Amino acid sequence: MSPGIPFGDRLTEAVARRESQIVLGLDPDPARVWPAAREAADALAVDLDLTTTGLRGRATSPASPGAVAGAAIGAWRAGTVASAAVAAHCRALIDAAGPACVAVKPQLACFERLGPSGQTALAEVVAHAREAGLLVLLDGKRGDVPVTAAAYAQSLAGETPSPWGALPGFAADAFTANPLLGRDALAPLVATGAGVFVLVRTSNPGAADVLDLLTSGGAPLWEHLAGLVDALGEPGPASGLNAVGAVAGATVPRHLARMRELMPATPFLLPGVGAQGGDVAALGPAFAPGRAGGLVSASRSIAEASTQAGGAPADAARREAERLREVAWGLG
Amino acid sequence: MSPGIPFGDRLTEAVARRESQIVLGLDPDPARVWPAAREAADALAVDLDLTTTGLRGRATSPASPGAVAGAAIGAWRAGTVASAAVAAHCRALIDAAGPACVAVKPQLACFERLGPSGQTALAEVVAHAREAGLLVLLDGKRGDVPVTAAAYAQSLAGETPSPWGALPGFAADAFTANPLLGRDALAPLVATGAGVFVLVRTSNPGAADVLDLLTSGGAPLWEHLAGLVDALGEPGPASGLNAVGAVAGATVPRHLARMRELMPATPFLLPGVGAQGGDVAALGPAFAPGRAGGLVSASRSIAEASTQAGGAPADAARREAERLREVAWGLG
Repeated sequence: MSPGIPFGDRLTEAVARRESQIVLGLDPDPARVWPAAREAADALAVDLDLTTTGLRGRATSPASPGAVAGAAIGAWRAGTVASAAVAAHCRALIDAAGPACVAVKPQLACFERLGPSGQTALAEVVAHAREAGLLVLLDGKRGDVPVTAAAYAQSLAGETPSPWGALPGFAADAFTANPLLGRDALAPLVATGAGVFVLVRTSNPGAADVLDLLTSGGAPLWEHLAGLVDALGEPGPASGLNAVGAVAGATVPRHLARMRELMPATPFLLPGVGAQGGDVAALGPAFAPGRAGGLVSASRSIAEASTQAGGAPADAARREAERLREVAWGLG
Repeated sequence: MSPGIPFGDRLTEAVARRESQIVLGLDPDPARVWPAAREAADALAVDLDLTTTGLRGRATSPASPGAVAGAAIGAWRAGTVASAAVAAHCRALIDAAGPACVAVKPQLACFERLGPSGQTALAEVVAHAREAGLLVLLDGKRGDVPVTAAAYAQSLAGETPSPWGALPGFAADAFTANPLLGRDALAPLVATGAGVFVLVRTSNPGAADVLDLLTSGGAPLWEHLAGLVDALGEPGPASGLNAVGAVAGATVPRHLARMRELMPATPFLLPGVGAQGGDVAALGPAFAPGRAGGLVSASRSIAEASTQAGGAPADAARREAERLREVAWGLG
């Protein structure tokens, strides 16, 4: 993160420099990593087993504390190896598809489920993306009362003071947030200076249950959220693009023109392309304020491109990311 | 967690057994731990410094990789010591106030900001609470599209399959969730069998921005969310209490009667008592379906009771938790 420069300007600069509006979603599943990551992790598992054989021998003795220790060692081994597999997979995905992208979007849930070593893997993946010149957009959709939102802000894009020195957060360039708790709950997130992409209309079918609910004025709830987002954040002086963005599900492209009307200077994060059924060519209105006005996020359609296209996973991922990049660049 | 028994029945049994409806919120700040935890962590910091002196000596050499390593060691030391402080603080808080409580509610943001070692601290605190006979209610207010909600479900109250064995989650008895993304996004969380406390009306001032918004039928959005929550989850056959609960901000007690009307069998989690200004005596309607119908959550008012009441932090915390327990028990 470059704290001095407003996020809208940083995003605009990055999109121009990388000639890409594609955001590489990282939603790793330890059971579906690429073969090379699987092999490296298998080798690590063998090493760990050699190291812990003695421990396990003692741990699996009939006494109950030993059995507990055995289970703990087994869980630690699985978490350590799975996290290493996930980190290797994400690094390889970044190396393959990253050159066609402007940012990575790690899905926090996929790292949280790996336990403590998952947080180490996430830090490693974030560092690798940054070294590759990519912005880092953490996808956790956090939302909580102000005092707790401030703690999330420290974790995502700040630091936590302690008597033993500051604990660094992830220094994310941007992250996603949930607006249900209102403006005071978003304020500590916005105050980080990172880009905040607020949920406005998501791409899942259930989004109709709440986000499409009609309010007393006749407009759906998501239009109210759009108004709230439009009023937040400062435009970058160079780009005119706001620091507070919107998650705008691309599965309902007819919404995009209306969203752009309500949020003329807001960068849109457009998920739902590819695996979730969205069509990148329908995204035109997103790019009205400039190419950085629409970020096209794709995860499984890139990471699992080889299941459709055949070939090596890395080659298929690179080609799919490049294809998306060209289509989006041609629109904006 | 006892997966066979529906959450409504497990909660009802726990409330009766502990004669308490108090939920001990754990929102630890490494800069505000109790003195004994601070001293233990200071001692650990000295040990770590002795261990890493050699590393630091090499790491702070003028070469750039060394400086990077020095910063990394510093961050690792701060995270390790702060996490140890937080774990010791929470264990002491559980030992002091836990006997007057039915559950603990760790605030995930407060552990996330500590880095990888914060996840280890959280697992330790969860285990300690469970050994003390308390339910564990993880407060993360997660909400995401179905595929991601399933990953959160694995982390909170399930396990993640991997080629190297299953990665255990936190086995939470219950957790909080955000309903903005609709029913399909809640479904994987409900399917865990753990209790799911869905945000309906929070206690922060900004909640008025979105949750109080009037819908086309004339009712505020939170009433619509209440209807959605009422339709989710199964009642426990023994207690009649639903497995899906509601977060019902206690700072607006006039809402509680209406919430109870809309959600007759839903357990309410009532935050905002104490530090956030709520009054426990105004919570009557919450307890209509029985004592387990209303869980009174308090964090800072217990952990920091000595700043008002004087005396040792543990004694003041124990007295405040006991006081809350008696007031709530007298109501329900």
